[in-house]
Amino acid sequence: MSFPKSVLVKEEGPREGFQFEKGAIETRRKIELIDALSATGLRHIQIVSFVNPKAVPGMADAEEVVKGITPRPGVHYTALWLNDKGFERALAIGRLHIEGSLALSASEKFLMRNQNRSFAQQLAAQHAIIGRYRERGVAVERGTIMAAFGCNFEGDVPVERTVDVVRQMVDLAAEHGVALKRISLADTMAWATPFSVKRVVGALRERFPALELELHLHDTRGMGIANAYAGLEMGVARFDASVAGLGGCPFAGHSGAAGNVCTEDFVFLCDEIGIETGIDLRSLAECARLAEQVVGHPLPGAVMKGGSLKRLRERIAVAAQA
Amino acid sequence: MSFPKSVLVKEEGPREGFQFEKGAIETRRKIELIDALSATGLRHIQIVSFVNPKAVPGMADAEEVVKGITPRPGVHYTALWLNDKGFERALAIGRLHIEGSLALSASEKFLMRNQNRSFAQQLAAQHAIIGRYRERGVAVERGTIMAAFGCNFEGDVPVERTVDVVRQMVDLAAEHGVALKRISLADTMAWATPFSVKRVVGALRERFPALELELHLHDTRGMGIANAYAGLEMGVARFDASVAGLGGCPFAGHSGAAGNVCTEDFVFLCDEIGIETGIDLRSLAECARLAEQVVGHPLPGAVMKGGSLKRLRERIAVAAQA
Repeated sequence: MSFPKSVLVKEEGPREGFQFEKGAIETRRKIELIDALSATGLRHIQIVSFVNPKAVPGMADAEEVVKGITPRPGVHYTALWLNDKGFERALAIGRLHIEGSLALSASEKFLMRNQNRSFAQQLAAQHAIIGRYRERGVAVERGTIMAAFGCNFEGDVPVERTVDVVRQMVDLAAEHGVALKRISLADTMAWATPFSVKRVVGALRERFPALELELHLHDTRGMGIANAYAGLEMGVARFDASVAGLGGCPFAGHSGAAGNVCTEDFVFLCDEIGIETGIDLRSLAECARLAEQVVGHPLPGAVMKGGSLKRLRERIAVAAQA
Repeated sequence: MSFPKSVLVKEEGPREGFQFEKGAIETRRKIELIDALSATGLRHIQIVSFVNPKAVPGMADAEEVVKGITPRPGVHYTALWLNDKGFERALAIGRLHIEGSLALSASEKFLMRNQNRSFAQQLAAQHAIIGRYRERGVAVERGTIMAAFGCNFEGDVPVERTVDVVRQMVDLAAEHGVALKRISLADTMAWATPFSVKRVVGALRERFPALELELHLHDTRGMGIANAYAGLEMGVARFDASVAGLGGCPFAGHSGAAGNVCTEDFVFLCDEIGIETGIDLRSLAECARLAEQVVGHPLPGAVMKGGSLKRLRERIAVAAQA
């Protein structure tokens, strides 16, 4: 056991959710949810992706969303982009926290399906991208490994391959004089179990003790919280999560693709273990209920329905005094 | 790490689900689901409870359900009862696997709410019950500790108290010449986290190394699978579960009470780790979809929607040969 003292929860609900939901969601409602999330104590919220509106119509209003929010000091609002055009759109808008990030995939078949690129082409693309970031003065601190635990098109991914892809990521950054600080392991298609999370994190810790690890976990097979807990036990201190369990990967190739691990359920877990998140669970659960209203259907989060224990403890304490 | 080689999954979906669901479910549909479950490899299915039909109208047809199923050799069909009358109904029907079981609660306030009994009264009742079981020639091998991890009315339950209640359970059985084989730890109101599961199981292991432990975990706060995984890591080899996540405790005192940990999601986890269950996940996922039809609304199970990895691996293997 080596729990972190505190964790950084990176909220991805708005970006993951709004690009996945069928039917148009009004821009003002997206803004309403983002502003509510920014009042919970979350310090990092990914709010839009700058992608082709023909491919992802739910993100056609990305600029409007960014311009419409009321930025709260201390909160990093971030965006996702997949190419130069998206990157330039993100830069142009001014208001966002811009982080240069590299991406490789532990599964070449996923890469082919997702981006129509071979591994070698993806590697070459990263060289171009890192050059571009440096040209524009954007710091590059992080690399993402997609399909780090398995792939719907390729199957199981051996631990050694994920470790090797991380090595290639570190090396390619080093060629540009960049020392990566962090690697995000993305369970893009929900192949991870708590057991494999521990194995992969353990192997990476051994090989690259100085690298911080992040987990991006999808809940498609109900393993999200268990996988996140396995990460916590391994000392992982940065997690992507999605309020109410919003979202899903539109490229994962099967209909049941669920969103990221649910933010408020994860924060509940951290609260109960005594790991600091800086997030107010009650406000966050209200955001989760707001998210259900915004998308117009129930979402999978449990704590927003089941209630937190903090609240029950308060009631019990009050009753005991009466 | 000390995973068990195999686990016994005790299916509780029919009993948990049908007593919880609002609106009448046709008896023949209950039977249909039970018969389908018995073909999956499950060896233990709790199918009804013999309780007051005025209190639990969904169980008014308990006898009809038991008489209507097509018993499959090797499958134990069990029932729940809360008093002598229920016990006699279960005995009278002949077809059920009758297990004598004792019950105490780690929270007296829950006991008062649930059964209007003090801890002392509950303890006295267990003496009467064990006498009655022995009179009727029913073996008593198991005790259940309700609210073993916390209580909505009392709050956190210290580990020492749960250990002490187990000790009282063991002692009371011993007074009747009975050596209990197993203790079931019930997270009746979903207060457990993987961390507390490990602490409580660890403390009991140390104090009572010969006792087998079972876990009965509710998923109200989304911790079900994570808690079950914590149990697996501690070597626990018997788990209650509920197909599709059916059910919920009607006495838990809050609207969001969810069912037991979802059977097929748990079996998926075991499959992926390599722990034997003897259960065919594909058939079980079909049962989960059938359960949704039977109750007439979506249920929380994830793997029935997200799909198993075994199936994807098969498809990938076929594609590789083509």
